Amino acid sequence: MTDVDQVVDTYLSAWNERDEQRRAELIEVAWTPDGELVDPPIAGEGHSGISDVAAAMHEHYPGHRFRRASEVDAHHDRLRFAWELVSPDETVALIGLDVGEIAEDGRLRRITGFFGELPVNGTQAAAQSA
Amino acid sequence: MTDVDQVVDTYLSAWNERDEQRRAELIEVAWTPDGELVDPPIAGEGHSGISDVAAAMHEHYPGHRFRRASEVDAHHDRLRFAWELVSPDETVALIGLDVGEIAEDGRLRRITGFFGELPVNGTQAAAQSA
Repeated sequence: MTDVDQVVDTYLSAWNERDEQRRAELIEVAWTPDGELVDPPIAGEGHSGISDVAAAMHEHYPGHRFRRASEVDAHHDRLRFAWELVSPDETVALIGLDVGEIAEDGRLRRITGFFGELPVNGTQAAAQSA
Repeated sequence: MTDVDQVVDTYLSAWNERDEQRRAELIEVAWTPDGELVDPPIAGEGHSGISDVAAAMHEHYPGHRFRRASEVDAHHDRLRFAWELVSPDETVALIGLDVGEIAEDGRLRRITGFFGELPVNGTQAAAQSA
């Protein structure tokens, strides 16, 4: 497991931690103090802002957790990986992609999340079926 | 076509323009002066740095061009879209994903490119085949 894999998995553990104090500890390991998380429905800046986003997820999806669904693909200070949000009975509630940037200290500086599959281009779809 | 679609397509037109002067004009339309392009093999900053990256692509893949292969999926100031690099005879030489950030003036401030499909997580692949 690389350092980048490890910081990503700590980041996901922070998402999944319902206890606010333990979540704050994981966020501190995974994120720079100026970290910025931008997901489609909500964004958060700084350790407490990021924690608030996770709290909103737990409120909206009780008992759910994120798991990584791909390798971490990284180059330069950039990375991407796929994830699934699963319910307590392991049903996949949501899939998505996170794209991130690693700071010099090895922690995350920014994550942008995207939900669902990337919609196919109409023109390309037509060309492919022709 | 939204403003975001339009800036993305101008960005791709800039990639595909082999004439340096015309490429500079397209880059100025699509990118902020401090724009930053980070692709796996090479990165460029500013209008001339971004033009140099495109020139390197034309040297490596003579006659090839990029085309957008998905809708542009955008939220907040972030976006993603899939692309294909195609040869003069329309063979797909490379596929990938670009993730970007839009500045307040509507131009691109940063693009991070990723090549190929996202590698499936070993654990998830095993779970899916079980």
